Amino acid sequence: MMDFSVTLPAWVHPRVAAEPEIFPDVEARMRFAIRLAQENIERGTGGPFGAGVFDAEGRLIAPGVNLVASSNCSILHAEMVAIALAQQSLGRYDLSDGGAVEHELTTSTEPCAMCFGAIPWSGVTRLVCGARDAHARAIGFDEGPKLADWQAALETRGISVVRDILADEAAAVLEYYRDQGGMIYNAGKGHVGADRC
Amino acid sequence: MMDFSVTLPAWVHPRVAAEPEIFPDVEARMRFAIRLAQENIERGTGGPFGAGVFDAEGRLIAPGVNLVASSNCSILHAEMVAIALAQQSLGRYDLSDGGAVEHELTTSTEPCAMCFGAIPWSGVTRLVCGARDAHARAIGFDEGPKLADWQAALETRGISVVRDILADEAAAVLEYYRDQGGMIYNAGKGHVGADRC
Repeated sequence: MMDFSVTLPAWVHPRVAAEPEIFPDVEARMRFAIRLAQENIERGTGGPFGAGVFDAEGRLIAPGVNLVASSNCSILHAEMVAIALAQQSLGRYDLSDGGAVEHELTTSTEPCAMCFGAIPWSGVTRLVCGARDAHARAIGFDEGPKLADWQAALETRGISVVRDILADEAAAVLEYYRDQGGMIYNAGKGHVGADRC
Repeated sequence: MMDFSVTLPAWVHPRVAAEPEIFPDVEARMRFAIRLAQENIERGTGGPFGAGVFDAEGRLIAPGVNLVASSNCSILHAEMVAIALAQQSLGRYDLSDGGAVEHELTTSTEPCAMCFGAIPWSGVTRLVCGARDAHARAIGFDEGPKLADWQAALETRGISVVRDILADEAAAVLEYYRDQGGMIYNAGKGHVGADRC
């Protein structure tokens, strides 16, 4: 009960290596997050969510994919994995380094209540979202109790929010997951689908 | 950038070993969480927060302490560590096992926005809190944007909430941390204190 480790699936390495060093614009970064989400389903390594932390030049600091079922850990949403790995990569718990530098968290679907709450602690200064959280709810995920004005709450803390980037492609991944019977890993009686991922 | 591991400080092991197998009541479980918080300060291994996940008989499934600064990871709040380690210990991401069993998360201070959002995903069925989140805010922590009726939001999801258990002792740990100049690890310009923990 004293330790655990988090490891990205092996397929993520060549996927990252095949990408350019710089992701030039928000669509390129979102396309990458969506591809991670899609491949995470196809490879059977987790839920239909992908993310990445990028620096101000568009360089990938760390990718993230959902690892809840494959790692038996409910906190390992794609955004949390990307944040934690980016912080390990830079050697600090505050990606902004005291407000000195900018980082973007790109996520294929808007954050759930947990990931939303994690963002202000992380030091990212921009959040870019693909599908709406309503899409995640529509396929059965309980995204949790979020403030109605969650974007405003982030903006108040100096974190800008950009929504609906490649929203149709991002939502299509969620629908693909539902259509192929992907597990909905809500806790308790909210669980839906086979216990595999 | 591809993996990270979470390890409890070595001092936690003998601390756990010295406790009885069963914590008979909510005060005993809270006293344990508060001791973890206090020792985490004294040992210099993290922020002033301790937690534990217990089964319905009062058996400790996993302890947690804040490891943000010592692990360079903003998501490693005491509650998150306890949840993740408990899930590793039981081998499932849903502690409730589909609603079949009860678990309690005991935390020395009420959850921040992130830990609040993590609770519904975790499968714990009861949350027991010591100090109020207002106490954490009073010593400088930005607990994040939480719903005004966060307890009700958990109760709606079948998670009971018990507040103010040994609240004075729990708050005293926060004040001790502030008085000895403990780092306030908010991201960005909200950071206060020396960069060590």
